[in-house]
Amino acid sequence: MEERPAGYTFGTSAVARSPVTMTELRQLEQAVAWSEDDARLLRRLGERIGDQAEALVDGWRAVIGAQPHLAQWFVGPDGAPDERYKAAIKQRFVRWVLDTCRRPHDQAWLDYQNEIGLRHTPERKNRTDGAHTPPLVPLRFVVAFTAVVTTTLSRFLGDDAECEPMAQAWSKAVLLQVALWSRPYVKEGWW
Amino acid sequence: MEERPAGYTFGTSAVARSPVTMTELRQLEQAVAWSEDDARLLRRLGERIGDQAEALVDGWRAVIGAQPHLAQWFVGPDGAPDERYKAAIKQRFVRWVLDTCRRPHDQAWLDYQNEIGLRHTPERKNRTDGAHTPPLVPLRFVVAFTAVVTTTLSRFLGDDAECEPMAQAWSKAVLLQVALWSRPYVKEGWW
Repeated sequence: MEERPAGYTFGTSAVARSPVTMTELRQLEQAVAWSEDDARLLRRLGERIGDQAEALVDGWRAVIGAQPHLAQWFVGPDGAPDERYKAAIKQRFVRWVLDTCRRPHDQAWLDYQNEIGLRHTPERKNRTDGAHTPPLVPLRFVVAFTAVVTTTLSRFLGDDAECEPMAQAWSKAVLLQVALWSRPYVKEGWW
Repeated sequence: MEERPAGYTFGTSAVARSPVTMTELRQLEQAVAWSEDDARLLRRLGERIGDQAEALVDGWRAVIGAQPHLAQWFVGPDGAPDERYKAAIKQRFVRWVLDTCRRPHDQAWLDYQNEIGLRHTPERKNRTDGAHTPPLVPLRFVVAFTAVVTTTLSRFLGDDAECEPMAQAWSKAVLLQVALWSRPYVKEGWW
């Protein structure tokens, strides 16, 4: 795979074990109607996206940057966007696109989903990059922005018979992850 | 509109004011990239679905019924599915499909989203129907099942140029609501 972005700790000892069990993960996979076909279609989508993943993320970041209620979570103590923080996260966001297409849902993947979720909350946000932006991305924006992430892949999907199932595989994979990321936000026992 | 299902209290004094402000709702709409075009496409989708909404919901309920980790939230104290409770919810679920396509996002709509969210939590679950099923649908299953609700509309979308934007409008509308429903689940200040 590609060179590791700074702070991208997938599969390393820096990543704690997820409190979510593999049994719970398999239940969530069922709940999104995940199948081997989805995994296969996503691998193909990953090939199509390839080195355009950065352009895709640039598009999403432009959407975020245009909305003060989304952009504010990237702002430093001086009130200006923390460009170093944004750039570091962007490289990991690009890798996330490809990981979503390529990685099997194994223990290392599950552990890293836990890490990603925590990096949106006071437990881990800012820490990876030594930044001083607000300590939390509120859950409602994580969930809502999922709609942008799942509805902007058209140019990679083509017009063939795989177009729609490929888009659906992507939606399932993203929502599975958002369900996992939501855990630290939720009241004890309500996740 | 159609006859009111039992417990369907949209727009009545039985529905409390949402703690979410209209300003926050408009921000969430922006975060899902909601537009007037989406509203228009959804109205058209609603026309296409029409009296097949019940069949659509039957399909989703079959998915739920086949997964013990989803079906368990409909089980009564005797360990058997509470069929009266399931039937009552189903009629409201059917109406929800059409409301999602037809209703403007105004104060009454926002208030009812709050009500729907609460009906998945101990504050309101079971109360509407006098049922005795478990008091909570864990958030992870609400989020994950969104993938099923957003990827199973194909037969209503047709093959025309509106197919893809109509599917996207539906996804945006559903994720906007899931973001709203998540509020009571989340730790104070983290929503």
